[in-house]
Amino acid sequence: MDKVEEFNAYRQKMNDKLLAEDNLVLKRFFNLDTNTYADGALSSQTKEMLGLVASMVLRCDDCIKYHLETCYKQGLKKEELLEIFSVANIVGGSIVIPHTRRALEFWEELENHYKK
Amino acid sequence: MDKVEEFNAYRQKMNDKLLAEDNLVLKRFFNLDTNTYADGALSSQTKEMLGLVASMVLRCDDCIKYHLETCYKQGLKKEELLEIFSVANIVGGSIVIPHTRRALEFWEELENHYKK
Amino acid sequence: MDKVEEFNAYRQKMNDKLLAEDNLVLKRFFNLDTNTYADGALSSQTKEMLGLVASMVLRCDDCIKYHLETCYKQGLKKEELLEIFSVANIVGGSIVIPHTRRALEFWEELENHYKK
Amino acid sequence: MDKVEEFNAYRQKMNDKLLAEDNLVLKRFFNLDTNTYADGALSSQTKEMLGLVASMVLRCDDCIKYHLETCYKQGLKKEELLEIFSVANIVGGSIVIPHTRRALEFWEELENHYKK
Amino acid sequence: MDKVEEFNAYRQKMNDKLLAEDNLVLKRFFNLDTNTYADGALSSQTKEMLGLVASMVLRCDDCIKYHLETCYKQGLKKEELLEIFSVANIVGGSIVIPHTRRALEFWEELENHYKK
Amino acid sequence: MDKVEEFNAYRQKMNDKLLAEDNLVLKRFFNLDTNTYADGALSSQTKEMLGLVASMVLRCDDCIKYHLETCYKQGLKKEELLEIFSVANIVGGSIVIPHTRRALEFWEELENHYKK
Repeated sequence: MDKVEEFNAYRQKMNDKLLAEDNLVLKRFFNLDTNTYADGALSSQTKEMLGLVASMVLRCDDCIKYHLETCYKQGLKKEELLEIFSVANIVGGSIVIPHTRRALEFWEELENHYKK
Repeated sequence: MDKVEEFNAYRQKMNDKLLAEDNLVLKRFFNLDTNTYADGALSSQTKEMLGLVASMVLRCDDCIKYHLETCYKQGLKKEELLEIFSVANIVGGSIVIPHTRRALEFWEELENHYKK
Repeated sequence: MDKVEEFNAYRQKMNDKLLAEDNLVLKRFFNLDTNTYADGALSSQTKEMLGLVASMVLRCDDCIKYHLETCYKQGLKKEELLEIFSVANIVGGSIVIPHTRRALEFWEELENHYKK
Repeated sequence: MDKVEEFNAYRQKMNDKLLAEDNLVLKRFFNLDTNTYADGALSSQTKEMLGLVASMVLRCDDCIKYHLETCYKQGLKKEELLEIFSVANIVGGSIVIPHTRRALEFWEELENHYKK
Repeated sequence: MDKVEEFNAYRQKMNDKLLAEDNLVLKRFFNLDTNTYADGALSSQTKEMLGLVASMVLRCDDCIKYHLETCYKQGLKKEELLEIFSVANIVGGSIVIPHTRRALEFWEELENHYKK
Repeated sequence: MDKVEEFNAYRQKMNDKLLAEDNLVLKRFFNLDTNTYADGALSSQTKEMLGLVASMVLRCDDCIKYHLETCYKQGLKKEELLEIFSVANIVGGSIVIPHTRRALEFWEELENHYKK
């Protein structure tokens, strides 16, 4: 398993366990979370970028990885990615830098993963 | 003075005072902050939306107002605005709701201000 | 209008405007937010205390006021309130103190409001 | 050593080292932190739930683990735990989800640890 | 009353009320908070600067005002203040800017207050 | 490689990759970040302490490590370090404790590294 598969496997396994507990609020919230990024007045591509920058300034590495993968699949270009990084760093400050390093590393892992 | 003018007047006055102190790091940072949202690989419109959602999840009312005004001037539609609100609320949780209320109120003030 | 009525009136007015925009994600999220605090495995009283302490450490004054009013109506005692304050201050640090001052002030306004 | 023992061993070792430095403020703060969750107007059980939800919305994995273990020892039921998770997720948003996944995993480790 | 007196009067009044409630954890925490900034291995001046920058990146206006006043009384120079601002802005990002504007404004109010 | 070398190697490698992408805003921000801590009205030593306490209350382990190393090289004494820890814990609350444990551990790794 590469890092992308590992991340997704753990995420899926624990989400399944959480949802199996049948807590209605959590189930609806997870469902809502998915719906949030669907095409609407704004495209799914734009919303995923919004989700990525929000995750970066809130410094949630797992959330960053999730949105990075979706952005990657939707064809986000690397120079666009870097501009999202720049907004996140200016808004959120130098504490965002370590997350930016890890985000770039995961992006490279996505490039390797999807080349296979 | 309406609320939009008041906000901008205070912001301008205090920024001028801060920059007059001639602290090089602050001056460069303020300048960089402006450059961040210029057209590039991503359009300025997209970057302002990124700035808005980042400001919302970080719950900075003044930052929200600033990006709301730029988004308004760039022609953001209300249903697009609401979708940015939805991303911010799902990512950042119910603590974003009070900022969403105030954001909608400022949007109405922008509508009134620019109708004049 | 006293401070409690003012708070609730503004909250209600802006929530109504937000919901009138017919953004499905926001509507469902607002609805879910309400359901979260209903009786379940934990009582609504306990959940409102959880909502209050969470709002305090996240330093959201409006969220604090909302949960303070529900806790007040549900019969929370002042020495219990103070213990919630103590948890919030120890977990969240001295930056929670200003919110604690305003929380106590709003509690007094609730006492005045409901005595009428 | 299982994950629970590992967590507690590291925590204890570093706390001992920190306290050995004889910084009076830190020593008193650590002591105060312990006292905060003692029985009072609210039961220790309720306070530990408050500590857990506060740790979740502030996204502090180690703090979450600490309160999870105390809650577990005090007999918190799994459906109660899930309701604490639901409050934390609604208040704090989807950025709390990764911490919820890890919290559920640690809960399972607690179940395994204490069955032995 | 000028803005400095108003700030201190409200702060004192509500602190007195909080402490009058006789919650031991809160009383000890307030006491500890005061002791934290006393002369030790580091001077009180240095610690107040630490308290100020911490309050700025955590974006707590009341905490900022409190430390600004102590720093002012201890003789902090304006160009030193601006360098604290610069660290806070770089570490915490552009969301710190609105707090920096208000901090400079309060500093001017301190200058007026103490000139009287 | 010890932990200090590992940390620095990863940091350097990813910073190099980020800067190689030629995003002007990021490059200037990284440069500004370095300049922020240079001698000025305040000494570099004082500014590094400010950077450390800001990183602690914002709970950024990598940022903490970076400033710890600079502080260590500049001759910060352990009892001074502990007082910075105490400010960070009182301002930021018990959620800072896990970061304080890791900070002390990294300090020991710095002691070992530089003894070699």
